[in-house]
Amino acid sequence: MTEDAEAARHREKMQKRKAVQDAEVAGKTVEKGLLMVHTGAGKGKSTAAFGLALRMLGRGRQVGVVQFIKGAWSTGERGPLEAMPGLEWHSMGEGFTWETQDRERDVAAARRAWEKALELMGRPGLGLLVLDELCIALRYDYLPVEEVVAALVARPHGLHVVVTGRNAPPALMEAADLVTEMKLVKHHFAAGVKAQEGIEF
Amino acid sequence: MTEDAEAARHREKMQKRKAVQDAEVAGKTVEKGLLMVHTGAGKGKSTAAFGLALRMLGRGRQVGVVQFIKGAWSTGERGPLEAMPGLEWHSMGEGFTWETQDRERDVAAARRAWEKALELMGRPGLGLLVLDELCIALRYDYLPVEEVVAALVARPHGLHVVVTGRNAPPALMEAADLVTEMKLVKHHFAAGVKAQEGIEF
Repeated sequence: MTEDAEAARHREKMQKRKAVQDAEVAGKTVEKGLLMVHTGAGKGKSTAAFGLALRMLGRGRQVGVVQFIKGAWSTGERGPLEAMPGLEWHSMGEGFTWETQDRERDVAAARRAWEKALELMGRPGLGLLVLDELCIALRYDYLPVEEVVAALVARPHGLHVVVTGRNAPPALMEAADLVTEMKLVKHHFAAGVKAQEGIEF
Repeated sequence: MTEDAEAARHREKMQKRKAVQDAEVAGKTVEKGLLMVHTGAGKGKSTAAFGLALRMLGRGRQVGVVQFIKGAWSTGERGPLEAMPGLEWHSMGEGFTWETQDRERDVAAARRAWEKALELMGRPGLGLLVLDELCIALRYDYLPVEEVVAALVARPHGLHVVVTGRNAPPALMEAADLVTEMKLVKHHFAAGVKAQEGIEF
């Protein structure tokens, strides 16, 4: 096949691809606040949620963050995000459950975080609410799944919510508009590499 | 079981969990720049990469971004990231391949983007390099996989690189330290919801 013929075939294929793409875009007309879940054993669940926060802030919208587990230590993204107008950040967790070793304390911390989440959900003008590691609190039964899912489903029409954490409960995934599983294919920890600043925290 | 007994059992379980966790952390001593790949059909590949960029910038490190495909339109995160000191952003793509419909032009754009990536890899002091949608350029054979993987493997010791895009080639995953597949479990586009500002762009 000559170069011209190859170029023409490529153009034809891409024209068809574009027609399909345009039709798909035209068929999507609904605008609504989404309930998004980032789950799975891989990396990127919280990182992508904070990336969304950044994107939303970049559009001039307001963003709330509630951290259910983490928060006892600092992560690199918190400083720059908090420096941006429109962000409200609440770290309500006391670290991983194996650090506190006190179930009652963990349950109380999760409850306080959830109350804060409910308060932010009622905040007029909020564009995105990040509920970081809420799945962990649900998994350990620190909060009742039914209560949490019912409140998330009843969120204001335009509010986007992203929930992160491993082991998202089935009822939450059922209620969600978007579920992404961050799947661990290969991890450097297995090769003895430690958690490094700017990457893991 | 009484509440006290339950609390004691929880504490004991978490003490064991913490011992395992601490031993795992102690066993990891290697520090090195990682080659990370975000692939799969789900959302969050680029978003998590930009979240990493934010984290690294928050640690006061320098970050380079090269966009291989996207770049013809603006995304919400670009403005706030570019406003931070230490970021250098190059959008070298001309949009999706079905928009340009010109293979030669796409190959030339990918080559220019790759030259820019090589230049940034040689930049002293760079902490993280984001090669956004490089997998797409590799998938369409706009760039030879062997050449790209060889250069990535030969990167400076301390430099972290994250490569995004669907259909990461096997040779790239083989060379990577971390591979995460963003797996689509459920997507709102299927329910007729359109791409919305602050979420998809």
